[in-house]
Amino acid sequence: MPDMSTSGIYMDNNGTTALDARVFEAMLPFLTMQYGNATSRHGFGRTARAAIDHAREQVADAVGAHPTQVVFTGGGTEADNMAITGIAAGAGNTAGQLACSVVEHPAVSRPVLAMRLRGWKTAVIAVDTNGGIDQQSLTKILKEPTSLVSVMLANNETGVIQDIAGIAEHAKAHGAFVHTDAVQALGKMPLDFHELNVHAMSVSSHKVYGPQGAGALVLDKRVDIQPLMYGGGQEKGLRSGSENVAAIVGFGLACELATRELGQRAARLRDMRDRLEKGLAALGAVIFGRTADRLPNTSFFAFPDIEGETLVGALDRKGFAVASGSACSSDSTEPSHVLLAMSVEQDLARGAVRVSLGKDNTPEQIEAFLAALESELLRLKRLTAIAV
Amino acid sequence: MPDMSTSGIYMDNNGTTALDARVFEAMLPFLTMQYGNATSRHGFGRTARAAIDHAREQVADAVGAHPTQVVFTGGGTEADNMAITGIAAGAGNTAGQLACSVVEHPAVSRPVLAMRLRGWKTAVIAVDTNGGIDQQSLTKILKEPTSLVSVMLANNETGVIQDIAGIAEHAKAHGAFVHTDAVQALGKMPLDFHELNVHAMSVSSHKVYGPQGAGALVLDKRVDIQPLMYGGGQEKGLRSGSENVAAIVGFGLACELATRELGQRAARLRDMRDRLEKGLAALGAVIFGRTADRLPNTSFFAFPDIEGETLVGALDRKGFAVASGSACSSDSTEPSHVLLAMSVEQDLARGAVRVSLGKDNTPEQIEAFLAALESELLRLKRLTAIAV
Repeated sequence: MPDMSTSGIYMDNNGTTALDARVFEAMLPFLTMQYGNATSRHGFGRTARAAIDHAREQVADAVGAHPTQVVFTGGGTEADNMAITGIAAGAGNTAGQLACSVVEHPAVSRPVLAMRLRGWKTAVIAVDTNGGIDQQSLTKILKEPTSLVSVMLANNETGVIQDIAGIAEHAKAHGAFVHTDAVQALGKMPLDFHELNVHAMSVSSHKVYGPQGAGALVLDKRVDIQPLMYGGGQEKGLRSGSENVAAIVGFGLACELATRELGQRAARLRDMRDRLEKGLAALGAVIFGRTADRLPNTSFFAFPDIEGETLVGALDRKGFAVASGSACSSDSTEPSHVLLAMSVEQDLARGAVRVSLGKDNTPEQIEAFLAALESELLRLKRLTAIAV
Repeated sequence: MPDMSTSGIYMDNNGTTALDARVFEAMLPFLTMQYGNATSRHGFGRTARAAIDHAREQVADAVGAHPTQVVFTGGGTEADNMAITGIAAGAGNTAGQLACSVVEHPAVSRPVLAMRLRGWKTAVIAVDTNGGIDQQSLTKILKEPTSLVSVMLANNETGVIQDIAGIAEHAKAHGAFVHTDAVQALGKMPLDFHELNVHAMSVSSHKVYGPQGAGALVLDKRVDIQPLMYGGGQEKGLRSGSENVAAIVGFGLACELATRELGQRAARLRDMRDRLEKGLAALGAVIFGRTADRLPNTSFFAFPDIEGETLVGALDRKGFAVASGSACSSDSTEPSHVLLAMSVEQDLARGAVRVSLGKDNTPEQIEAFLAALESELLRLKRLTAIAV
């Protein structure tokens, strides 16, 4: 086995989160004694089925939906793909275009692109310099027949929150189905499927202190959607495959905890984030989307002339785990597509660093981070000065 | 939380298996302290990445493939769907038909049907009364241009093993890609991707004492395959979505153990299965596929005039967990499509019960099962006699 001695201060909670100890405890029986296949009719199977039913209620409660609207998936990416390709397939490629915003996670933008290659028309909705949907762009796009509009509720990089209910009202008036990727929103802001007024919404377990390997697509049952996976007919035929019982159980409790503790978590995160950004600004950082309505835990920033990758690497060596660009595409060295869409200059965008705080971070860690950052900035600027 | 006091003697190991305690131990760090997103570049992320790399080697070793040929998925159903729809999409719907056998798991047969509804031609390969591929049927089908042939290595209901290398040779000579669903074969018989001579092979973790939520598609890299899910570009772009690190780590070790302990496990299973079938025959059971080459752990049988569902329910109440029909479609009350394809009469097929033994079963449990079965049969026959 590889060395597993990783430690340090984790500030990459939009990438993934530590499993909550209470969630782990709830999963334990299903990782040990209770191993039935939920489709089996014997006692082991019925126990698994009952646990999934319970988790379905927990997830539904957390997102303001009815349990029958919750389709469990293997994660957020699967839920997004199911929404895009499933609704597109249900509508057919002559019904209308598929539109998504320019700041979507690749789990939305890339299936849209894939459908384009399969003959669907597609459109990209622009954003303003604050990362909010450009209403003129949306209006223009909706003049063409449109099957689906997908706009994320909260951006994974900037934390900027969109007015999904308003966008949905506009899009619905033009006959489009509306999907929102709420993966980053769950657990960080109030979330109500019916208030958002959408037809489909994706959520994910491992962004909310639940295990990896579970997510859900919440559905307005009037939507004609085709499955992404066919087989044994699980999830009423919408998502076949033996259910990952332990992960679903963990996801359920993680959702319940997220709802119950939301107020307290969000207030603490906001306090820490504000202290962080005060310190960042004092050090000369540009904070992206700072004046927009944002998640309470996310700071996306850059220092002019300091490369983001370099800074992230230096901070990692000092024991601080933060991200450059989005966690899910950090194999890439292209500047953030989100920042470019917000008209941030390429050079500055290359400096982008994301700190995404979580419920286990402390104010002391913020101070330690700022101190480490200040000394690294001094060191890097000195190196740059020598190089010039 | 629901009651979790299930206990009893578990004999439904083709449905799912108990997590091996050693596998659970290996997963533990990744469910607690090591929670990084494997795409992240900081220490937490690198630790997760290294663990996935190690698991990829373990899975590759277990199936006789190179690590770069292993694409991790969320399970066997996803791997099957990816193979069918991905290879079909790569070929296009004018290139040739998609063929699968009549005894496939729905995770293969239903995506084939879905592609048919999207304009692909499809064909179904017949089997003989022993459940083996009907060579005449295959030959006839291959006279038409064929893009893909999918035949499972070992059947989930009967355990009957197909001559995949022979089928692949035949199909390849006609220019078809060949996929095999080896979900039930892994851990129960030797498995070598290159010897099987196929282009793609599906395996699953939870059938081999690993966790639910992990599987793999093993690929000949010359195959033009399109992803089922698009997004962050994980698994070289073939399967996007944050990796389920703990599940992948568990799957890796489960594969290593399955290979290392295969000889011992298979011999024990065969001894128990043979003792079971001797007892079943003495009680008057018809054992399906008995003279075929079969997995060492699976007995699929029926007693004339005894309904399978009834018997399974009665045995469940006595503490024995067995299946009627396939575990993954046991919501259905239709007789097994596998048995009907083998020309078993409807009435007898309705009596089908599957016992699938696992490494944790004991010879004493077999004796206890036979004793319970005998008394239940007597009781049920008495009830039938009264009813008549």
